[in-house]
Amino acid sequence: MSVPAGQHTVRRHNLALVLGEVAGPEPLSRAGVAARTGLTRGTVSSLVEELIAAGLVTELAAARGGPGRPASPLRLDPRGPGGLGLEVGVDSVRACVVDLTGAVRVQRTVASDHRDDVPDAALARLAALATDVVAEAGLPIAGATVALPGVVGPNGVLERAPNLPRWVDVAVGDALSTRLRGLPVRAGNEADLAALAERWAGGPTDAIVVSGGIGVGAGILLDGGLFAGAGGRAGEIGHVVVEPDGLECHCGGRGCLETLASLEALARPDAVRAAGRALGIALTGAVHLLDVPAVVLGGGYPRCGAPLLGAVRAELAARVFSRAGIDVRFSTLGQDAALRGAATAMVQAVLADPGEVITARPLARPPDVAEGGAPRPATVRGAGP
Amino acid sequence: MSVPAGQHTVRRHNLALVLGEVAGPEPLSRAGVAARTGLTRGTVSSLVEELIAAGLVTELAAARGGPGRPASPLRLDPRGPGGLGLEVGVDSVRACVVDLTGAVRVQRTVASDHRDDVPDAALARLAALATDVVAEAGLPIAGATVALPGVVGPNGVLERAPNLPRWVDVAVGDALSTRLRGLPVRAGNEADLAALAERWAGGPTDAIVVSGGIGVGAGILLDGGLFAGAGGRAGEIGHVVVEPDGLECHCGGRGCLETLASLEALARPDAVRAAGRALGIALTGAVHLLDVPAVVLGGGYPRCGAPLLGAVRAELAARVFSRAGIDVRFSTLGQDAALRGAATAMVQAVLADPGEVITARPLARPPDVAEGGAPRPATVRGAGP
Repeated sequence: MSVPAGQHTVRRHNLALVLGEVAGPEPLSRAGVAARTGLTRGTVSSLVEELIAAGLVTELAAARGGPGRPASPLRLDPRGPGGLGLEVGVDSVRACVVDLTGAVRVQRTVASDHRDDVPDAALARLAALATDVVAEAGLPIAGATVALPGVVGPNGVLERAPNLPRWVDVAVGDALSTRLRGLPVRAGNEADLAALAERWAGGPTDAIVVSGGIGVGAGILLDGGLFAGAGGRAGEIGHVVVEPDGLECHCGGRGCLETLASLEALARPDAVRAAGRALGIALTGAVHLLDVPAVVLGGGYPRCGAPLLGAVRAELAARVFSRAGIDVRFSTLGQDAALRGAATAMVQAVLADPGEVITARPLARPPDVAEGGAPRPATVRGAGP
Repeated sequence: MSVPAGQHTVRRHNLALVLGEVAGPEPLSRAGVAARTGLTRGTVSSLVEELIAAGLVTELAAARGGPGRPASPLRLDPRGPGGLGLEVGVDSVRACVVDLTGAVRVQRTVASDHRDDVPDAALARLAALATDVVAEAGLPIAGATVALPGVVGPNGVLERAPNLPRWVDVAVGDALSTRLRGLPVRAGNEADLAALAERWAGGPTDAIVVSGGIGVGAGILLDGGLFAGAGGRAGEIGHVVVEPDGLECHCGGRGCLETLASLEALARPDAVRAAGRALGIALTGAVHLLDVPAVVLGGGYPRCGAPLLGAVRAELAARVFSRAGIDVRFSTLGQDAALRGAATAMVQAVLADPGEVITARPLARPPDVAEGGAPRPATVRGAGP
């Protein structure tokens, strides 16, 4: 007879509980973990051994902190499975690897203009970059997430990207997975992943996180999680109407926020205050509809500095009636947020359910790199020895 | 020893399960309920007896439908505890009683302009109207909900109503409860309650339900429930900016939807198309932010007919890029929606947890009405003999 399902479930839950404590800000010994979780020391020891064997946890040198046997502080293993973040921008492809502790191990950007391009060439370029980055990072990879500059359906298909007119209904995750020897690749909207990255970097739990780039999008955080709306495509603030009779937008509409506050619009002379005003007007609507207390301006906006921040704050102060004092701040991650969010999403998935990684072992190890030559394609999950 | 807590919980859950089946569209016998719920016939019989004793369920005349003992169809008891709906409008107070089957038993409106008024007089007027309506309905009352034309905090306090400048931080529910002999009175935003009413009347599960009146508000339905936002005050679509340099709004802002699409704005000559355009522009932003597939136009909007509907549809078709074919329709409840929603909210609460009513018994019975005279104040829960 097999073990009852309930015991598997409890063990899996407890593995996550213990790993969550180890991931916390202060180093804990096994005894410390037991005290915090309410599990017995025996149970904790057995779970910790399993996490160490899986490469998720490591033991620091023992420190004598009092009477009795010295306690060994436990930490997340920086050699453990990392997350691969990928990004298709309008004019670049990017890749990075974040390790289990959240540290960025490798990050690279390659210029690649996709405005008049079909997806195939860009995806080949991104897969090659991903392979290089994984080889360089030298970590097993738990999985990848790709950030996309458009509307991503619940099934991970890029349905439409206003700035990439030839990318319509593209299964980007599947296409990349095939090119990366079956590595699981999820897809997400870049603004959503940027919003999660802000949260994971210690930002507010409830906020509209606006990403200013060639397009303008937002991820909406509610209670620390991403608000998806009815259909999973919420947060398209770039197409909130600011000037009903304004300039034509790539989306087919007119006077959208994106026509006034994209980085292209900001490149016009004296545009910063006008863009700030437009952002403040669109955000007034968003705050009234969503009732959020905070706004984070990310992507390229932090480079615009105080004039932009001041204009957004002034507009909100003059127009929002339902809440006093909206907290408006710049992102500390800027244009790296979506890529970091994509990579960290995989690490967060491992931390939330380490049992999944342990069950799926053996995880792929990084490839050998030929002496003096180009790295060989990355060996990824399912392709290990 | 008392019964273990788990048994109470299971019985309470099963009471709701059985009542939910009885509330369904087709009449069921005890055997039918047993077949649908998977409970034993003995358990169902015992639960049904309890629901009948509590006045929630009644038995119709037995109908011979096949061999064996004739089956008695069960129905919700229209004499059972009803819900009291109350509404503070900008220029009226309203009250209605809905019985357990959802039928409106009494509904009354009294003109009462609150624009320059302090709350006390209005609340006295509403409490008197409520007392009359309850007496006339002749039902025990499970509780009341009051619909309010402004921002209602999570604690039920009316924080601010742009069209009632002297109503600031008013604990309307508590004040009415005191005037109604301790009847529980919850408070909700009128547009939120109108949205729930649309849903309960068979409307879409995911929609923005806009209420057009002296103010303009919206209730946002996601997966059949109300979307509250981070702070419980979501849906203030009336203060989405449509014309950044437009007319001053009561809220202190400028060019809000409310300045262009309130019923006062619609009273201007040839304003219907302009209001429809403004609604379409504000809704474009809301659809992009919330990703909802449907819009219901309620309150006074259905009276504006096809020109309004056409203008809203045209604007959305020209501007929304993330979804094809937003379903835009008029409400069938119109200006009664918030009041009906308020009354039905209490009935829905009884159906969701009949154990709560059964535990709280004896419920108040309606008062005697003196021959030829005015009804005496209603006897409500906690004030019974």
